[in-house]
Amino acid sequence: MVQRHRSIERLMELLGRLPGVGPKTAERFAYHLLRIGRDDAIAVADAIVEVRDAVRTCSVCFQLDASDPCTICADETRDRGIILVVEDPREIARFEEAGWRGVYHVLQGRVSQLEGIGPDDLTTESLIARCKRDVVHEVCLANNPDLEGEGTAQLVAERLRPFCANVTRLARGMPAGSAITQLSKSILADALDGRRPLQPPG
Amino acid sequence: MVQRHRSIERLMELLGRLPGVGPKTAERFAYHLLRIGRDDAIAVADAIVEVRDAVRTCSVCFQLDASDPCTICADETRDRGIILVVEDPREIARFEEAGWRGVYHVLQGRVSQLEGIGPDDLTTESLIARCKRDVVHEVCLANNPDLEGEGTAQLVAERLRPFCANVTRLARGMPAGSAITQLSKSILADALDGRRPLQPPG
Repeated sequence: MVQRHRSIERLMELLGRLPGVGPKTAERFAYHLLRIGRDDAIAVADAIVEVRDAVRTCSVCFQLDASDPCTICADETRDRGIILVVEDPREIARFEEAGWRGVYHVLQGRVSQLEGIGPDDLTTESLIARCKRDVVHEVCLANNPDLEGEGTAQLVAERLRPFCANVTRLARGMPAGSAITQLSKSILADALDGRRPLQPPG
Repeated sequence: MVQRHRSIERLMELLGRLPGVGPKTAERFAYHLLRIGRDDAIAVADAIVEVRDAVRTCSVCFQLDASDPCTICADETRDRGIILVVEDPREIARFEEAGWRGVYHVLQGRVSQLEGIGPDDLTTESLIARCKRDVVHEVCLANNPDLEGEGTAQLVAERLRPFCANVTRLARGMPAGSAITQLSKSILADALDGRRPLQPPG
């Protein structure tokens, strides 16, 4: 019997820990890294080492950046009194594009009973510590508008309330640019629930 | 605007070259490698370097092994007169389990008009050189029983014929352990085409 070299087995095992990667995909990745030029394969290894050397987690808000505290937490022009709470550091770029000028807090995940992740497995304690330490007049929970996101927001809000009077949640409703005929009844129900007085043109 | 650190962009670009990995998956992998412990991330980099240091491509048959020539090519007890031609080195383990005692030749891929891969982009020339150099009395093409595999086998066979009189193909038919009611008409057509005289019990 031909045995696979143990270094291939080892690489497959490690690649199989990437999110959504099963044994077959890990095998495909490992053999791809063996088939391509040596320099191209080593470049992947170097890029992993470099990213871990260059990028760190901000000790205040847990976003990923070259500096700690991160550029946003160090920025004196940002409003530190309003914290937008996100699950994943990737979401920050989206809110920056949308014009957010407050600061952030990355939960590093979501509550999931299935996976045994409770609010205390996230960065909730650090968020509470920020509320105690700084003058925070609003914490807005920007969890995804789905079942797990709502659950996470509820549980984090429970912990936060003793330390912050004003815990908010992002609005749900019709997505900008959509057509009502194409929207689901849950989206329209949200839009009805959250209807607001029309401002007279200023 | 928060810019992603260039080391993250670089890692995402390289991970995006893995087979079947698009930009979104590459992003998920990169952030996973940033979220897990530093040692766990560096272990992936080390495993890539190690696999490239430990494993080489056999210069005779193009399979992957710790030595060159590989264990099978160096094995004096194997029948070097019969070469089983496979597309991918991973397939060798399956044929070893099935009891093959000849040698192998890895094509390193398949002919694909869509991807612009012809028989000369595979290791066909080396296979021809083996037929010229050694006493090879059979080359069996073990390409997959699908459209691209059949096409590859046809094109490789064309090149081989001047140098090997006996080019064969693996049998197609009913898979062992299957139930005829569950088999497709193409499988049954193959089984009918390939029917063989029943051997009297010996």
